[in-house]
Amino acid sequence: MIPKIAMIGGGSWATAIIKMLSDNFTEKEIFWWMRNEEAIAHIKAFKHNPNYLSSVEIKVPANNISSDIHAIIKQADYLVLNVPAAFLKESLQGVSPADLKGKKIVSAIKGIVPDENLIIGEFMHQKFEVPLNDILVISGPCHAEEVALEKLSYLTIASTDVAQADYFAKLLGTRYIKTNVSDDIFGTEYAAVLKNIYAVASGICHGVGYGDNFQAVLISNAIREIKDFVDAVHPIDRDIKESAYLGDLLVTAYSQFSRNRTFGNMIGKGYTVKSAQLEMNMVAEGYYASSCMHHINKKYKVEMPIARAVYAVLYEKHSPHIEMRLLTEKLN
Amino acid sequence: MIPKIAMIGGGSWATAIIKMLSDNFTEKEIFWWMRNEEAIAHIKAFKHNPNYLSSVEIKVPANNISSDIHAIIKQADYLVLNVPAAFLKESLQGVSPADLKGKKIVSAIKGIVPDENLIIGEFMHQKFEVPLNDILVISGPCHAEEVALEKLSYLTIASTDVAQADYFAKLLGTRYIKTNVSDDIFGTEYAAVLKNIYAVASGICHGVGYGDNFQAVLISNAIREIKDFVDAVHPIDRDIKESAYLGDLLVTAYSQFSRNRTFGNMIGKGYTVKSAQLEMNMVAEGYYASSCMHHINKKYKVEMPIARAVYAVLYEKHSPHIEMRLLTEKLN
Repeated sequence: MIPKIAMIGGGSWATAIIKMLSDNFTEKEIFWWMRNEEAIAHIKAFKHNPNYLSSVEIKVPANNISSDIHAIIKQADYLVLNVPAAFLKESLQGVSPADLKGKKIVSAIKGIVPDENLIIGEFMHQKFEVPLNDILVISGPCHAEEVALEKLSYLTIASTDVAQADYFAKLLGTRYIKTNVSDDIFGTEYAAVLKNIYAVASGICHGVGYGDNFQAVLISNAIREIKDFVDAVHPIDRDIKESAYLGDLLVTAYSQFSRNRTFGNMIGKGYTVKSAQLEMNMVAEGYYASSCMHHINKKYKVEMPIARAVYAVLYEKHSPHIEMRLLTEKLN
Repeated sequence: MIPKIAMIGGGSWATAIIKMLSDNFTEKEIFWWMRNEEAIAHIKAFKHNPNYLSSVEIKVPANNISSDIHAIIKQADYLVLNVPAAFLKESLQGVSPADLKGKKIVSAIKGIVPDENLIIGEFMHQKFEVPLNDILVISGPCHAEEVALEKLSYLTIASTDVAQADYFAKLLGTRYIKTNVSDDIFGTEYAAVLKNIYAVASGICHGVGYGDNFQAVLISNAIREIKDFVDAVHPIDRDIKESAYLGDLLVTAYSQFSRNRTFGNMIGKGYTVKSAQLEMNMVAEGYYASSCMHHINKKYKVEMPIARAVYAVLYEKHSPHIEMRLLTEKLN
């Protein structure tokens, strides 16, 4: 049985995973759904995504690329969800639990479904009746831009069934992609969401004028907040210093490619949320994650002073200068 | 009793700590020893260190600055050791255990005494009969350059006697310096030494061409190596994610100010050790630490693939390209 994998989403991370799947030697059939008809026409004609990672050569057969989500889903065993979390519901409009029956759902989204305040796995489980055993998670540390450049990167594939994670990992690994497996689908997803908030925090602090010394303190406190939160939500034995948790935080908080850090930096320098978003012309997932996590944490009540400070700046219009000054008293 | 504190060393970290001690409001008397007579004359005349952090105004009274180590030691209750580890023995030549009797020894050195293969606290304990209770350690994350700029930084003061650590911390804290205390003098010193090796590794990988994705994996493996090592040497209950351990690693491995990272980068780009040292005109402590830790670890036999790879490149003339390629197979 040749595995049939459908990518749902047409952004840079989707394009990066399409590249990995194509460069991997295991035989498979790849399908690709995206909303944008013009992009589809361009990819079919020129074998490059016009909008994201446009240097990457696309090897997906033209007939397998479509904006008809039903047609794509029907043909696939694996659906790799890879649209911004805020657009997931809209993308799956008209898709029923029956349509997904027997299929594996792979979350490559690092975000939370707004209004529902659920991570992707939970959302698909609760709203589309996908059994938890059929859910997989792909996590970094991995900027799509470096995949395009074929820079060596490590991915973690999580599933409650580790053999299944291992099987999917073997479909992704290439010369420039190494894979780890994990059974922690909840911790991996939450850590991937939270790290975007801390990258925003990191950017705000930089924008306000704090230096590298403080940044190191901020991030070593951030990983402790992440640990406290995921341990509260899903208490299993995990080492938060592994690449999927700490590594993912580091690449996002320290890298030049991080949209969340750039967004935070603009906020720290005095841009409003609106003007920073207009200027960047991109969604910083950390902005939405901040609000969602704030609401989710009302249930768990984990002490998360950094996440709280980011929420106060982004949603309560607190001054970044004052909020970060207050935060410095809570770190160590 | 007004505390009398002598700084032993005239470099940038010594100058930074002199600034903190001077800006702190607790009454104290500060003494300063350095070898360089010309620098002393300059400081006495112009109140600025001509060679390091020369923007910092020096408020130490001219009479308290001297190149006569006996005269300085005699007057002080606290000796802050702050010369490169490689020069500590030479700096203390002629000083006897009796000269240090009753004095507190504060290690601000992040290195290992060559030939002896001892961290500073152990060296002072074994060779100068300083009781372990009289030893304190100052640790970062803290680049001296940012102290000069009065960027907010957090220091950790360690002592087996936490009340004593707390007392000394209160002599250092200022508007721009916050302090933590710890009872982990061994773990703090070893982590401070090891992080320089990982900063060299980080630089080598960058020089060879690895990107941010890999860097994040490297550092999240590095902190696990640090934990494994310090737990083997001094098994106490410690959280390696605290600023003194993880924060110190991050600031060194990711900052533009890091000499060790710069040194590693040159090695990765193909410089020999000799030519990189000549070009930088500065000692990268990680170079010496690599050899010392390699020998110390013969006793403990902790698996440290990154530290081992750095040693192979620096001391066994292995190709950085090949050695880092081999290393990538050992990380996750």
